[in-house]
Amino acid sequence: MEEPRIATVRPVAENEATGRVAEIFADIRRTKNIDFVPNMWRVLATNPTELEVVWNALKTLMHPEAVGRTSPLEPATREMIALAVSATNGCAYCVNSHTAALRKLGASSSMVGEVLAIAGLFNMTNTLADGYQISPDVLPPLEDP
Amino acid sequence: MEEPRIATVRPVAENEATGRVAEIFADIRRTKNIDFVPNMWRVLATNPTELEVVWNALKTLMHPEAVGRTSPLEPATREMIALAVSATNGCAYCVNSHTAALRKLGASSSMVGEVLAIAGLFNMTNTLADGYQISPDVLPPLEDP
Amino acid sequence: MEEPRIATVRPVAENEATGRVAEIFADIRRTKNIDFVPNMWRVLATNPTELEVVWNALKTLMHPEAVGRTSPLEPATREMIALAVSATNGCAYCVNSHTAALRKLGASSSMVGEVLAIAGLFNMTNTLADGYQISPDVLPPLEDP
Amino acid sequence: MEEPRIATVRPVAENEATGRVAEIFADIRRTKNIDFVPNMWRVLATNPTELEVVWNALKTLMHPEAVGRTSPLEPATREMIALAVSATNGCAYCVNSHTAALRKLGASSSMVGEVLAIAGLFNMTNTLADGYQISPDVLPPLEDP
Amino acid sequence: MEEPRIATVRPVAENEATGRVAEIFADIRRTKNIDFVPNMWRVLATNPTELEVVWNALKTLMHPEAVGRTSPLEPATREMIALAVSATNGCAYCVNSHTAALRKLGASSSMVGEVLAIAGLFNMTNTLADGYQISPDVLPPLEDP
Amino acid sequence: MEEPRIATVRPVAENEATGRVAEIFADIRRTKNIDFVPNMWRVLATNPTELEVVWNALKTLMHPEAVGRTSPLEPATREMIALAVSATNGCAYCVNSHTAALRKLGASSSMVGEVLAIAGLFNMTNTLADGYQISPDVLPPLEDP
Repeated sequence: MEEPRIATVRPVAENEATGRVAEIFADIRRTKNIDFVPNMWRVLATNPTELEVVWNALKTLMHPEAVGRTSPLEPATREMIALAVSATNGCAYCVNSHTAALRKLGASSSMVGEVLAIAGLFNMTNTLADGYQISPDVLPPLEDP
Repeated sequence: MEEPRIATVRPVAENEATGRVAEIFADIRRTKNIDFVPNMWRVLATNPTELEVVWNALKTLMHPEAVGRTSPLEPATREMIALAVSATNGCAYCVNSHTAALRKLGASSSMVGEVLAIAGLFNMTNTLADGYQISPDVLPPLEDP
Repeated sequence: MEEPRIATVRPVAENEATGRVAEIFADIRRTKNIDFVPNMWRVLATNPTELEVVWNALKTLMHPEAVGRTSPLEPATREMIALAVSATNGCAYCVNSHTAALRKLGASSSMVGEVLAIAGLFNMTNTLADGYQISPDVLPPLEDP
Repeated sequence: MEEPRIATVRPVAENEATGRVAEIFADIRRTKNIDFVPNMWRVLATNPTELEVVWNALKTLMHPEAVGRTSPLEPATREMIALAVSATNGCAYCVNSHTAALRKLGASSSMVGEVLAIAGLFNMTNTLADGYQISPDVLPPLEDP
Repeated sequence: MEEPRIATVRPVAENEATGRVAEIFADIRRTKNIDFVPNMWRVLATNPTELEVVWNALKTLMHPEAVGRTSPLEPATREMIALAVSATNGCAYCVNSHTAALRKLGASSSMVGEVLAIAGLFNMTNTLADGYQISPDVLPPLEDP
Repeated sequence: MEEPRIATVRPVAENEATGRVAEIFADIRRTKNIDFVPNMWRVLATNPTELEVVWNALKTLMHPEAVGRTSPLEPATREMIALAVSATNGCAYCVNSHTAALRKLGASSSMVGEVLAIAGLFNMTNTLADGYQISPDVLPPLEDP
């Protein structure tokens, strides 16, 4: 039976993955503590190098504990940044995925709304600052406190 | 003596502001606890309605205590979202302004980098999810916990 | 019976709105002269502050007569700007909503096309000007005529 | 004497243009009623096909009278759309150029601000509509009135 | 029988096209060597000037042989650029169309992935370079080798 | 003597790099065959994890030979995609850097123009396809030839 179309290419099924792809699929399930491989990663697996590059980047930044690292940002803060960026870009897959992740971390719909309201606000002020070509008045300090 | 050009229109000088504009300028200095009005607001003042609309939105969302409100987000989290959006849009004025604000709240350059790394990561994954037209696999729950 | 999913959060139904949200819902129906509250506002109502901020901004700029203001721009011109921005950002909800609003104001499909053709043209020239990093040759005059 | 760098490639000087490029340069000066060729066109002339494609599109849409056409939009409306798009994209060359064009058509700084305020507003609502993945409630009519 | 809705306006059917629109429809079928007119062009035909402007630009740049021109870029390279831009903008119609075109030119799903991986990578680095406001260290040479 | 400001944070000087950062700096010079570390990498080094994540991704995709990989794309094609994305985003650092890289690979200014013309064209058609909400007519084949 044909799986419904979920992308412009045929994603790699979990049970057909082999070698490096199968290892990364296992790492994704383990690291994210889920029992399936999300569409995103099954699609990226059609180019194993791409899968590896993106998973390495995401694992390091979003699952720092899995690489023995401590992030200066809380998990919910990281997902809020992800949601704000995805809303700015209008990416449907990403908005759904990061809203779900935020909810899993306990965020109410009101908190999701606060993130989006702030993302919306700064898309407005960005347009204004660029639309008037306003020069910076505040240069950030170069040195840490 | 002519002030150097800082925008495509001539900004309103603090000492020439009158009426509603002067009141908002005072509110900006008071609410932000600074002794000058940043370029952004002096430029928006060339259209007082625009100044009022944008200041009301920004004051409510970014200075909730000034309107008797409690935000579910920390001030630093709000500035991180602002920086992530501004980096995504490539807005020079905004990047400088929000980096400075984050620094004032105690963020090290390493923490600024963590915000930008995550913003960069999701600009990458947004491109991939949209570039493959990947269907959502996770719909967020509609109800709060 | 369950309403079909229309967003990542459960929108506020018109008949369950209370307090400030109910007042804004009534204001939206009155100001826009419609007999229902569009999805956008029902979704924003999940965070009443967000609803208030966005409605205040939109009411002031797009329904100036409702706040005792005269806009220098015609209603159709305002909707054309809205459509051009929404097309540039690729926002499906917004494109549908602003095309419908333009049509209600009497625009033919040919006029909609003229707006989009011009928006498309300048997305092309923006890419070229940025892609070559071209310096401005014309600085706008700072003073009004 | 070396001209200062104004782009990533060396623009074609007006007096070194020949053939089709010289003809288009003349057409630009005549159609726009100016006595110099703006940087944009001198840069595009480094690839004459690109110059021709972009000039044809811009001449047809922004100078309809020069091609014996009547546009359904006023010149100022067309420039407002151009400014709104350029502000959304943050294109410095384009913002300066279209603000100057609007000013030449008589727009006050307050009117420029009204255009930018509306462009900013819809960049905010676009982020919200996409950030919540809101379904359209209003489909525009397919037929003209 | 009503055709299903495919756009915000009613597209022009192939058999109802007349005059200049019919000529361009024929040119599209001939130049692209296909036996139908894609939705895009049928929609643009609701404003014949828009149809002509966009088709002229696309024919010249993407079908150079049809205008007696030699492009410095291979057809597959041109489609890769188209896909990278469409992925960056998140345009569904365009991603589908350019992926199909690339496939028709023989690209494997792995090659599509390589294009998207590189587009994703530079969306990430663009965010970082803009998010830190990094000054250029390498100015391209102005003269050709 | 103070180095001029090149970013919102103080970049790491080549001679002050230690440990993993020094190793990556050496790898950058070796892999890119240059005798200095570009600003981008010196800035990212303020957060070594970020430096490592971005360098790994870029090295793998843009310098495949350095990781024992064969890319399906030519070096010039990869740089063209980078330039098209950077032009679309309007990133000054990136446009300069990728134009310089293309030139180093032998591209004439006319070829740079061809890339930008195509990137501009598809930013135009993306706006049109999204601005009309056009449905795909061509779904790419899922299987490789």
